[in-house]
Amino acid sequence: MDTTVFARHESTVRGYSRAFPTVFASASNARQTAEDGTEYIDFFAGAGVLNFGHNNPRMKKALIDFLEADGLAHSLDMHTTTKREFIRRFHEVVLAPRGMEHRLQFMGPTGASAVEAALKLARVSTGRRGIVAFSHGFHGMSLGALAATANDAFRRWAGVPLPDVVRLPFETAPGGHTAIADYRALLRDSSSGLEAPAAFIVETVQAEGGVNVASAEWLREVQDLAHELGALFIVDDIQAGVGRTGGYFSFDGMGLDPDVICLAKGLGGFGTPIAMNLNKPDVDDHWSPGAHTGTFRGQGLSFVAGAVALDYFTDDEFLARIPAQGEVMRARLAAIADAYPDRGFEVRGRGMLQGLDVGDGEFAKRVQSEAFARGLLVGPCGPEGRVIKLIPPLTIGDEDLAAGLDLLEQAIGAA
Amino acid sequence: MDTTVFARHESTVRGYSRAFPTVFASASNARQTAEDGTEYIDFFAGAGVLNFGHNNPRMKKALIDFLEADGLAHSLDMHTTTKREFIRRFHEVVLAPRGMEHRLQFMGPTGASAVEAALKLARVSTGRRGIVAFSHGFHGMSLGALAATANDAFRRWAGVPLPDVVRLPFETAPGGHTAIADYRALLRDSSSGLEAPAAFIVETVQAEGGVNVASAEWLREVQDLAHELGALFIVDDIQAGVGRTGGYFSFDGMGLDPDVICLAKGLGGFGTPIAMNLNKPDVDDHWSPGAHTGTFRGQGLSFVAGAVALDYFTDDEFLARIPAQGEVMRARLAAIADAYPDRGFEVRGRGMLQGLDVGDGEFAKRVQSEAFARGLLVGPCGPEGRVIKLIPPLTIGDEDLAAGLDLLEQAIGAA
Amino acid sequence: MDTTVFARHESTVRGYSRAFPTVFASASNARQTAEDGTEYIDFFAGAGVLNFGHNNPRMKKALIDFLEADGLAHSLDMHTTTKREFIRRFHEVVLAPRGMEHRLQFMGPTGASAVEAALKLARVSTGRRGIVAFSHGFHGMSLGALAATANDAFRRWAGVPLPDVVRLPFETAPGGHTAIADYRALLRDSSSGLEAPAAFIVETVQAEGGVNVASAEWLREVQDLAHELGALFIVDDIQAGVGRTGGYFSFDGMGLDPDVICLAKGLGGFGTPIAMNLNKPDVDDHWSPGAHTGTFRGQGLSFVAGAVALDYFTDDEFLARIPAQGEVMRARLAAIADAYPDRGFEVRGRGMLQGLDVGDGEFAKRVQSEAFARGLLVGPCGPEGRVIKLIPPLTIGDEDLAAGLDLLEQAIGAA
Amino acid sequence: MDTTVFARHESTVRGYSRAFPTVFASASNARQTAEDGTEYIDFFAGAGVLNFGHNNPRMKKALIDFLEADGLAHSLDMHTTTKREFIRRFHEVVLAPRGMEHRLQFMGPTGASAVEAALKLARVSTGRRGIVAFSHGFHGMSLGALAATANDAFRRWAGVPLPDVVRLPFETAPGGHTAIADYRALLRDSSSGLEAPAAFIVETVQAEGGVNVASAEWLREVQDLAHELGALFIVDDIQAGVGRTGGYFSFDGMGLDPDVICLAKGLGGFGTPIAMNLNKPDVDDHWSPGAHTGTFRGQGLSFVAGAVALDYFTDDEFLARIPAQGEVMRARLAAIADAYPDRGFEVRGRGMLQGLDVGDGEFAKRVQSEAFARGLLVGPCGPEGRVIKLIPPLTIGDEDLAAGLDLLEQAIGAA
Repeated sequence: MDTTVFARHESTVRGYSRAFPTVFASASNARQTAEDGTEYIDFFAGAGVLNFGHNNPRMKKALIDFLEADGLAHSLDMHTTTKREFIRRFHEVVLAPRGMEHRLQFMGPTGASAVEAALKLARVSTGRRGIVAFSHGFHGMSLGALAATANDAFRRWAGVPLPDVVRLPFETAPGGHTAIADYRALLRDSSSGLEAPAAFIVETVQAEGGVNVASAEWLREVQDLAHELGALFIVDDIQAGVGRTGGYFSFDGMGLDPDVICLAKGLGGFGTPIAMNLNKPDVDDHWSPGAHTGTFRGQGLSFVAGAVALDYFTDDEFLARIPAQGEVMRARLAAIADAYPDRGFEVRGRGMLQGLDVGDGEFAKRVQSEAFARGLLVGPCGPEGRVIKLIPPLTIGDEDLAAGLDLLEQAIGAA
Repeated sequence: MDTTVFARHESTVRGYSRAFPTVFASASNARQTAEDGTEYIDFFAGAGVLNFGHNNPRMKKALIDFLEADGLAHSLDMHTTTKREFIRRFHEVVLAPRGMEHRLQFMGPTGASAVEAALKLARVSTGRRGIVAFSHGFHGMSLGALAATANDAFRRWAGVPLPDVVRLPFETAPGGHTAIADYRALLRDSSSGLEAPAAFIVETVQAEGGVNVASAEWLREVQDLAHELGALFIVDDIQAGVGRTGGYFSFDGMGLDPDVICLAKGLGGFGTPIAMNLNKPDVDDHWSPGAHTGTFRGQGLSFVAGAVALDYFTDDEFLARIPAQGEVMRARLAAIADAYPDRGFEVRGRGMLQGLDVGDGEFAKRVQSEAFARGLLVGPCGPEGRVIKLIPPLTIGDEDLAAGLDLLEQAIGAA
Repeated sequence: MDTTVFARHESTVRGYSRAFPTVFASASNARQTAEDGTEYIDFFAGAGVLNFGHNNPRMKKALIDFLEADGLAHSLDMHTTTKREFIRRFHEVVLAPRGMEHRLQFMGPTGASAVEAALKLARVSTGRRGIVAFSHGFHGMSLGALAATANDAFRRWAGVPLPDVVRLPFETAPGGHTAIADYRALLRDSSSGLEAPAAFIVETVQAEGGVNVASAEWLREVQDLAHELGALFIVDDIQAGVGRTGGYFSFDGMGLDPDVICLAKGLGGFGTPIAMNLNKPDVDDHWSPGAHTGTFRGQGLSFVAGAVALDYFTDDEFLARIPAQGEVMRARLAAIADAYPDRGFEVRGRGMLQGLDVGDGEFAKRVQSEAFARGLLVGPCGPEGRVIKLIPPLTIGDEDLAAGLDLLEQAIGAA
Repeated sequence: MDTTVFARHESTVRGYSRAFPTVFASASNARQTAEDGTEYIDFFAGAGVLNFGHNNPRMKKALIDFLEADGLAHSLDMHTTTKREFIRRFHEVVLAPRGMEHRLQFMGPTGASAVEAALKLARVSTGRRGIVAFSHGFHGMSLGALAATANDAFRRWAGVPLPDVVRLPFETAPGGHTAIADYRALLRDSSSGLEAPAAFIVETVQAEGGVNVASAEWLREVQDLAHELGALFIVDDIQAGVGRTGGYFSFDGMGLDPDVICLAKGLGGFGTPIAMNLNKPDVDDHWSPGAHTGTFRGQGLSFVAGAVALDYFTDDEFLARIPAQGEVMRARLAAIADAYPDRGFEVRGRGMLQGLDVGDGEFAKRVQSEAFARGLLVGPCGPEGRVIKLIPPLTIGDEDLAAGLDLLEQAIGAA
């Protein structure tokens, strides 16, 4: 397998290809196949994008039909029949059953673009500057989103200060249990040196941050404070949403009503890029036409595959499998943790987003490497990369899931 | 044609759909067809993306083949055979013939992501903060790119200050002829209050900024000053590159050697999202692996169509048509300008990126509206939207080009 | 008494003259006398400047002698005999007995200048940007010092963002007891989104902030964390130092060893302007000559009166009276608080810096007004101005102190 | 002469004492006398403070009288009889004859405090952030004033970015002649990337910046643009005002009408610290009471000596001597320049603020040193300190002026 082209002509910034030193040629559901025929079980799913598996056959068919019919592959934010069907279906499957009136805003097809748009809307609609973001939060690489991102390994690459963000500890971080109440008390005091923020942005499960799971109570406390202060409550559901933790939204059933919900990753179904915010109408009305643009906002292929993806959320069997398989994952991780009682491994997660905190980034890296050698793709996350995150396709078969967990167990043994 | 779904469920921020109040169902080369069968000649090309036309048949075939073969649609920055072929072909067609050693960096598939990455690299590699950007420049919507963007209609939506950018007049703006020399002289003086910048970022033709064309002399002056100061010279070739002005790069033949070149829009060929920077090796070496990431970095469909797009740049007939058709456009615009001598219309452009500055945004808007009513898609740009920009697919047929220019002429007469 | 000149020609920004609507003609020790002969007992001491009383006779004599001898009234940072004597005496009385090696830095004669210099030194010596400042802290009006100041009534006048400061709750504010520990834990985590700061700046008693008294334990915790992080520990002793709370420094006997100590207000003795930082030698060595200048750095009159002021700190009787009179003040305030049990008054303070928190700024303002009508000058401070702060000259006689407390008691009864 | 106290206990930051390695004991008019009896002619006047000489006898008498009468030495912004007299007299001597309605605002007694207050008022009254400041401008050391200051030797000590200032070249700097017109044109264009500023702050003669003299035409152009844009026109007259260039204000007779005028240095007459802004009433009305405070705002000694200083401006003989002596200085500097035609010396200045640009900071430093050795105090300024600035007391006798110029001539010969 020839990798010289990459070594010679691709930037030093490339990363995953160093952890997975092979060349992939094809993929199907939860398996990626290298040029030399080696198969890998995929517990990474393209960083949480491929919730419906690689080359989902229903989507593949729809995409080919669309291409053959000369549909509009690229249409900015013009009206197209394809986009209309996506919006109609999204309303029907997701919004209407929840009684949500949110409006769909499309932007450049990256999660960071969604976050940037959300922060702009929060700032302009409130006339305030500060955004409350949390320790261990991940919201993207562009300067506005990066300011909200906590990880110093990313932040230092800004090369400039990252202002206008107030950092509070996430529920599971030191001080996390009292921070919201303390912050409320300080903001009530005109001599505290703090100003009311424009928004709170939070992930219900911090995926990149180390699979940290917030409770419904804490999230409601954050939302309540946001609303008390006249600030927006923004949920970044880019990695935890679209079925990953069981419901369409990661906060289904928690009694939350976010002002803005950021979606991307799994939304396009097939790995086809798309990002979208759901804005409450009264907030959305602060936008002017064309205020936040983006060339690749209207991607026909993403609308087509994304509409197919929505069908899964009317399929009770599919929905029932997520908690069940999540429990399989959790149980196995717990067993692994129990097998090494002196290492202090910790298992965390919700639905099919599960993590094993091994407490040591070097060790986690060895696990990744040993897993790869055995035919399993898995990625570390969290502080110093010390949490092994499992995010297989939601459509993974029981055998592949079990086989992958076996390989992981072996890899940990070897590492 | 039902547009109620959009009106009810899509964000207030939507823009083009207001100028083009119809619903498009299909498209082919330089034509978009609405649901009711009305055909439109496309002089907008998806904001400069569809250089090879809608549903380019060679690309369509390649995409269907790729889908049927279960290629990796989404692969982050892992190695894939598809990506290898794209890189190889890019080197062969673009870099090698120019003796360029630049490395390819992929990021989230928006032009803004490319700009954000370029600015990070400039700042970290130089240890400086300031970026020199020019009046009328457009570089994207995310906070870092927006700081470099000049248009106040976009900037005010940041809701926060946009620091760390030094603004100089573009060559064609007031003071543009002396600004570079004055800036050099001031930087030599330790009491000038100015610090050496990390980079200069410039478009050779400002497309969104009003089709302002820089001379090779001025661009070399900018590059020379950048290098004197130890700053990077960055060309944002997102809209003007990939053939739009005649060569692969908009600066071909100008004697320039940028440290970073930002590409996106036309690069994916089919409207399939992709963004890429070309970094000189010594600059690129400042990156650490994983320093700037992005979920949708490895888009198989974009690599496939993008590789087909590269074939056009080995096709002399295709390349010869760009200046020829550009001249047809320019000549017609000049004739229009001559027909209304009291209006002071001005024609500007290079290759198939031509603009008619009608001096009045309201008038330009009426032209757009009259053109749409006649079956022509065209978009205004520049200050107050007073420049009618013509960017048809490079593959447009002679008849469609002539017909579109006829419609434009009629629309101007009516407006 | 003619006040039309002020009304016509002085800025709207004038403040105290509105609370004290008279014209003062002379003053002696703890009394100010109006033009019409009315005498006022001074519990405000020029905002904590006149620790040695108005027109202290020893200083007055020294000043007249100095003037008659044509001493250097103004000398920038040139060497003068007067300045030499001040430095020598300061070392002898203050530094040497405490074993302190700190160096004296003079700057423009305002507390804010001292704070600005301290923050510069912290930032340049550490190469970091952030300054940890506390809720309710007051550090001055210039942009750098204002960023560290907490009170929103002052902050909003900046008209620009006030970046590069991290705000933590003071010990007595909500979350104050756990904030230092939580902050330490978060800084240890590379995904917390926090960067190590350049310095912590703290007042041991927040005078303007509402007479909030920090414990020695908490201050040591702050100092320890600063040193753990490689940050400077800066004590702003501008109002609480120079004898106000009993010792020369407000932190005497607490086991603290600040890297920088900011002094001003009482330092010049007679109300003669001066500001000075005490920098540890290893920190001070980061300065370059002339790095922080200021026209009025070398004020002969301030050195002369300030040298006399130092004599008080070798006078055991003087030093013994401070806690004794502080206790008189505290006891009376406690009695007042007890007399209105339903009002929830709270007494706080150390030495001759005592406050009565009446919980309501409007009420405190009425108390000030009623006190003035009775011949007592007193000023509110703290959030919404709800704390009545007592800072009489340290040299106030027992009778004046008692009389002033009587007037205060009456004023509270009337209000 | 013992200087060990300074070497041991004073900060590394001390500067002038290194250029003038002696200890001064007394001073009178234009002479400073060292402890060992050596006399120095003072062409530096305490950095432009001592316009009326050291220990001006009229002021000395007034100060002693004031001290003996127990006047209010320190009164914040309360009404005092002393302050009333100063304001009355200032109106009578300065404002009324010019038909100026400006209000007097007092603040902390440093020029930087005046500038900080002016910038706050500009920002809050306009609701804008940017301040236009000029290359080579000097406005102070605190963070807000420092952002407006151009000299990098000072700016780099901030340790943080200095935002919210737009830098334009001063009239005499490269691009200075066209910058105002270009800036106007760019601001009219909504795609220029520039926002209308809150204020322009300018010195009519840049003293610290190298004795750069602006023309009345250029200053009017700046004022006109400020007013066109709804921005304030602020003149920082801290060093050039109070008689230094001939009139009370440095811009007398130029047809200017600044919104805010910053004064300090010479205002207090005796070297007694004071700073004051003159605000137009409609601008001043934006202040709230207490919005910008400062402990040492109400300095009785400064009001007393400052009131005496005002008498000089009713003395025609005094006023006539300034241009005459300025001409003596200028003529001698021109003769020196002519004597070294190959060195390219340049003479610049107005009134008794004259500079000799020797083009080389090292050379200027040697001149300073040689002058000191001969008994002359003189200070370099400008980029790299290459301009020898002459600012003797305005009250200097003809003999001392001639003698000083002789010494300077010898020093240049020796250097």
